[in-house]
Amino acid sequence: MVTVAEELAKKQREISISEFFLKNRHLLGFDNPTRALMMVVKEAVDNSLDACTEMKVLPEIKIELKQINENRFIVIVEDNGPGIVKQQIPNIFGKLLYGSKFHTLKMNRGQQGLGISAAVLYSQLTTGKSTKIYSIVGPKKAAHYFELQIDTKKNEPNVLKDQEVDWEKDHGTKIEIEIEGRYLKGRQSVDGYVKETAIVNPHATFIYIDPEKQKLVYERVTEELPIETKEIKPHPYGIELGHLIKMLQDTRANTLAGFLQSEFSRIGQQTAKEICDKAGLKAEEKPKKLDHKQIEILFKSLQETKIMAPPGDCLSPIKAELLEKGLRKEINADFYITATRSPAVYRGMPFQVEVGIAYGGEIDKESQIRLMRFANRVPLLYQQGACAITEAVTETNWKPYGLQQSGNNMPTGPAIILVHIASVWVPFTNEAKEAIAHYDEIIKEIKLALQECGRKLSIYIHRHIRAAEQREKISLFEKYIPELVAALSSLTNNKKDSIQERLQRILKKELPSLEAENDLKKEDESAQDLKAQRENKKIKNEKKEKQTTL
Amino acid sequence: MVTVAEELAKKQREISISEFFLKNRHLLGFDNPTRALMMVVKEAVDNSLDACTEMKVLPEIKIELKQINENRFIVIVEDNGPGIVKQQIPNIFGKLLYGSKFHTLKMNRGQQGLGISAAVLYSQLTTGKSTKIYSIVGPKKAAHYFELQIDTKKNEPNVLKDQEVDWEKDHGTKIEIEIEGRYLKGRQSVDGYVKETAIVNPHATFIYIDPEKQKLVYERVTEELPIETKEIKPHPYGIELGHLIKMLQDTRANTLAGFLQSEFSRIGQQTAKEICDKAGLKAEEKPKKLDHKQIEILFKSLQETKIMAPPGDCLSPIKAELLEKGLRKEINADFYITATRSPAVYRGMPFQVEVGIAYGGEIDKESQIRLMRFANRVPLLYQQGACAITEAVTETNWKPYGLQQSGNNMPTGPAIILVHIASVWVPFTNEAKEAIAHYDEIIKEIKLALQECGRKLSIYIHRHIRAAEQREKISLFEKYIPELVAALSSLTNNKKDSIQERLQRILKKELPSLEAENDLKKEDESAQDLKAQRENKKIKNEKKEKQTTL
Repeated sequence: MVTVAEELAKKQREISISEFFLKNRHLLGFDNPTRALMMVVKEAVDNSLDACTEMKVLPEIKIELKQINENRFIVIVEDNGPGIVKQQIPNIFGKLLYGSKFHTLKMNRGQQGLGISAAVLYSQLTTGKSTKIYSIVGPKKAAHYFELQIDTKKNEPNVLKDQEVDWEKDHGTKIEIEIEGRYLKGRQSVDGYVKETAIVNPHATFIYIDPEKQKLVYERVTEELPIETKEIKPHPYGIELGHLIKMLQDTRANTLAGFLQSEFSRIGQQTAKEICDKAGLKAEEKPKKLDHKQIEILFKSLQETKIMAPPGDCLSPIKAELLEKGLRKEINADFYITATRSPAVYRGMPFQVEVGIAYGGEIDKESQIRLMRFANRVPLLYQQGACAITEAVTETNWKPYGLQQSGNNMPTGPAIILVHIASVWVPFTNEAKEAIAHYDEIIKEIKLALQECGRKLSIYIHRHIRAAEQREKISLFEKYIPELVAALSSLTNNKKDSIQERLQRILKKELPSLEAENDLKKEDESAQDLKAQRENKKIKNEKKEKQTTL
Repeated sequence: MVTVAEELAKKQREISISEFFLKNRHLLGFDNPTRALMMVVKEAVDNSLDACTEMKVLPEIKIELKQINENRFIVIVEDNGPGIVKQQIPNIFGKLLYGSKFHTLKMNRGQQGLGISAAVLYSQLTTGKSTKIYSIVGPKKAAHYFELQIDTKKNEPNVLKDQEVDWEKDHGTKIEIEIEGRYLKGRQSVDGYVKETAIVNPHATFIYIDPEKQKLVYERVTEELPIETKEIKPHPYGIELGHLIKMLQDTRANTLAGFLQSEFSRIGQQTAKEICDKAGLKAEEKPKKLDHKQIEILFKSLQETKIMAPPGDCLSPIKAELLEKGLRKEINADFYITATRSPAVYRGMPFQVEVGIAYGGEIDKESQIRLMRFANRVPLLYQQGACAITEAVTETNWKPYGLQQSGNNMPTGPAIILVHIASVWVPFTNEAKEAIAHYDEIIKEIKLALQECGRKLSIYIHRHIRAAEQREKISLFEKYIPELVAALSSLTNNKKDSIQERLQRILKKELPSLEAENDLKKEDESAQDLKAQRENKKIKNEKKEKQTTL
């Protein structure tokens, strides 16, 4: 007799990761046509920016949306990065979970090896079309052209065309993806993505041609490349027992002390000895020979030994000054303030928080502030409610800083708040990478940065408001002087001129503080204005120049 | 010269799905020790319940949490299901993305082939221990015992022990997983999971031994097995162009008409012909010979042809009556109402919504109502804010139904609202399967079910409240009768008795509607009470019996 178990066994099958994400494409952010269009652009541009960083070249990225019909678009993204060697192109674009960034602890935009192949998968699901890739790796090298799809059953690339082509370019990559999509304007669209990406990548130039064939150029505002980041080893506080077991199996070190020093961040000879001593293990022990009990003790000892926090030089913040330039370039406000915190650590991972606030000017006074979230210089446009950044902003008390706020809601007022988190491993809540997990350490750092900016904002707002009130008082008094003069003159038979003069003398004498503050304020404002005007003018001129040359 | 592209190429690597989820375990719900403990129990119990359904056996599931030290637990789950054949055990438990349910459209608890192997992965990550599995597939078969881990680099099982053992059982599976966890009481814990699972699986018995060694038995309240469900073919409205291309490549059918009829739900001969005609294609066309343009036209024609909704018999709702029994068993309330909607469709997928409301009794009057969410009979304990069910509940206007509500917040009052969605493919927002995606069709169906129950709730509440008010009026009047009688008697010198009699006659005459309504209400209430008492008594007796025999 055949048992039920045997019947069931016949149905058991391996599921390829491509099939899995094909059926669960919403997990990757491809859940509706509007968002999908943005995601495809985002994945391509993220890769381009990462590649340019590797090459230490100032990025120039061209994004084009060609509308085929109401629901169909060809997305074209071209960069001046290093290009991709021929042999790697099929896997990078035609295989999910393939990449160079997953196994390293380094600050990158991409980290999972999913993004661009997910876009290819979505393209073939919705249009059945192949993705086209051009790549050239150096001025004397041949350019390569590929057309490919993904064999979803095997999660392997299916190359339909592979040939050399002429391409007038020294180095770079171009991708053309045909997808079902919907083009909308607004923040959560391609327009919004490009604009916000330009703000946090002030060293990059973006040329964006929208479906209506309008060309928008976001010029770089600095020629300075972001700080080069280093790959780091894991920190002992960030690993788990299972990791340690695996690391001990895989290591090439011959001694336990050697293993600890070579495989971890911040363990030197002295610390290694201390850890071994505490665990009651010999420094010369063979790592592969430890049994489960010994490893558990070693693990405990690692957690209990005082070890320096991981180095922060693996991070590349935008830096306050450039962040302000980025904000000024895209947002017309009266006042800008930015702050960059020192590196901090969550679960052994270094991270760094930056905050910027733009206030007044053309920003809407009546609505909730606009929150702009970024991780490793990538804008996060969806899932605001699920993000640690949102929690940090709403849990901050904004009233003392001059913004309206009811309870723990988003504050209201003419402000835009920008938060950027840089880390060697950003803890996203899902594969679409749109919200950051709620680690206490991260929320705390964001709050501190918000408070730092908030205090300066409050000084600006209070001065601004008090000055306005005082100006009003003085002008009110001045308005009544003529009438007062006339009355006093007819009462006393003194000359109007001399009365008026004396009254104004009194006003100046009685309200010297007011005048002084007012002058100070005016100075301050005009300085600020002048600076802003200068900056804006400079940027606009540069933009103009470039636009005419393009 | 080595180009940057060549340097980068050296770092490119394939990422195994195990490595991916090891680093991203929060995606699977293993993001903190409390939740992880619940997840491990949930994955094991879900599998047990699904297996029992396949065998058409009334499930008896034993769950035990053994605490090793503060942060360490062994989770043991044992079922009376069909067992698993020896050859399949390593893959089912030791390989992510492996299973029988992913490639079918059938109502199951599991659907991804991720859950139980994710639990094994979490165990080995946090404790380095192997998972132990016992299985027996029939009374005359040998029982098998395995100890295994996952080789994360390859995503393959690593079997450490594999032997025959004695096990006094006809058929079933037992799993022992050692993990880092934290045990808490409350709704989002193992306690909450077991309790809610018992409510929506009234045909199953659960024996739960918590870390304090207390034994809780949740007895089945029906011997009736859930309706057997059928696997269905995809519905034409639910597929995408890429799917269609793949299906045409993979089909064994020789003609286009044959392909349409055999591979889709609800396409008969006539409809197949209509689709072909509309697309300008011959019914005898070879499916594999169609070119891309023809397929696009065929796809359009599929979407534009009127095709019956998919059959609903692939769904197995709990059914209103059993849902009420389940609620009565675990919640002490005054009033219960349940409703099961007819099957509906989202993106070609059949689904069905059920709602239950318990009101009054021991339920807290002052707080927000408690929302219990279920999908395919599995409680959803996390991410309430991200779930379509929550949206449907908060967007319903509860005031007319007698609950307090401010704006679109969760209503307030002594009520528990239960929502169950059954589908051949539940659209979860993430791999941890804790929230349902916001499909309009789903939200609409939930709202209709809520309104159906809401109307009945409102009748109960209004009657209840109005009756109470009227009883109060009558008793107030009756209270004054003696004084009135005494006064009238001394004024008129008539006898007190006759005055009293006449007054009461007036009362009855003047307020007949009141009395009538009151009587009706009393009747109604006592019937309801009686029914409830009977039910509760029955359940309690049964419980008692079982507890003594165990």
